[in-house]
Amino acid sequence: MTISPQQLLETLSWRYATKKFDPAKPISPTEWAALETSLVLTPSSFGLQPWKFLVVENPDLRAQLRAASWNQPQVTDASHFVVLTARTTLSTEDITEWISCLAATQGIPTENLAPYQNIVEGFIQPLSADARHAWNNRQTYIALGQLMTSAALLGIDTCPMEGIDPAAYDRILGLENSGYATTVACALGHRAADDKYATQPKARYTADRVISHLR
Amino acid sequence: MTISPQQLLETLSWRYATKKFDPAKPISPTEWAALETSLVLTPSSFGLQPWKFLVVENPDLRAQLRAASWNQPQVTDASHFVVLTARTTLSTEDITEWISCLAATQGIPTENLAPYQNIVEGFIQPLSADARHAWNNRQTYIALGQLMTSAALLGIDTCPMEGIDPAAYDRILGLENSGYATTVACALGHRAADDKYATQPKARYTADRVISHLR
Repeated sequence: MTISPQQLLETLSWRYATKKFDPAKPISPTEWAALETSLVLTPSSFGLQPWKFLVVENPDLRAQLRAASWNQPQVTDASHFVVLTARTTLSTEDITEWISCLAATQGIPTENLAPYQNIVEGFIQPLSADARHAWNNRQTYIALGQLMTSAALLGIDTCPMEGIDPAAYDRILGLENSGYATTVACALGHRAADDKYATQPKARYTADRVISHLR
Repeated sequence: MTISPQQLLETLSWRYATKKFDPAKPISPTEWAALETSLVLTPSSFGLQPWKFLVVENPDLRAQLRAASWNQPQVTDASHFVVLTARTTLSTEDITEWISCLAATQGIPTENLAPYQNIVEGFIQPLSADARHAWNNRQTYIALGQLMTSAALLGIDTCPMEGIDPAAYDRILGLENSGYATTVACALGHRAADDKYATQPKARYTADRVISHLR
């Protein structure tokens, strides 16, 4: 079931932020279903999953989002386009909902998880409203990372998009006062044969620059 | 080189937040080297890589970090322990350093990238000091997501750790006034045969709850 370290590195080296997608090469339904499941299975702190993922299929919405994304063509040309949104708060109700889901999955009474619920509440309660939203925002980046890596393993290209206007996205997607707000987006599909970025050497700081071993 | 959707889902379902590692089962050097490279290759906004990853090998430091992590045994018992830190600021110097690296990789004069540098500066400049740190913090979660997914593909267990005292981590690791601060940590190794969490059913909200299709 596992892959080799070599295969992992080939996959991670193969991926790049695709700027030009081939609109004629869609992601197959089976592949897309797996990528949606990779979003669902994303780990999160305490398991709280403080997010919703919007798969934007409607062409008019895609065109509006493109206008709110510095007119980057990935928004309309990629096979699939996901807007990752985070819960704007993290309330006792959110925690209670999650504890109920956890208890149901494990087939135990909710009361058995009261000690765990207290730990989570104790962690959340000192946080300001802004800190809760920021915390949820960070969680969605785990989903972004898992999504991009998962896609690369299937041979699917991605472009993570932070150069977007989140407030405009919220308006276009009807998220205002919904309890969720746009964090980041990701286009997915297959690179166009002439995307010049595909052949550029991958630019990264050296390992010495970004990794330290404390011995 | 790619894997099947089925294999991806088996891998993502296999992983869980490992609470009890087997100290007698280290990660092999070849596997670890690949995981370090997966950190180096992590995508980031504009490619800025506003992070350092600390691989804590020193047992005394691991013991001190465990004390700053609610005494969770993963910190000392896992084969490897990584502290993901984010740059506390994002300055013109940071951007200039990155543009130089990019130009060198592409073998072009730095001046050719002036238009790109202006775009990046234009994006960063309106951000407050806190917003820059928060932005960098979010980027490190992409690394966390890619690291956990990469490890699972190699058959290596992980435990992401947010239940830590970041300020204490910064003191223990000598990060104060370094320009970097602790964001999150990740223990990696192999699950103990008796980790009871390994056999619990995976608890997640349903796809209907977290994914919406805008048609």
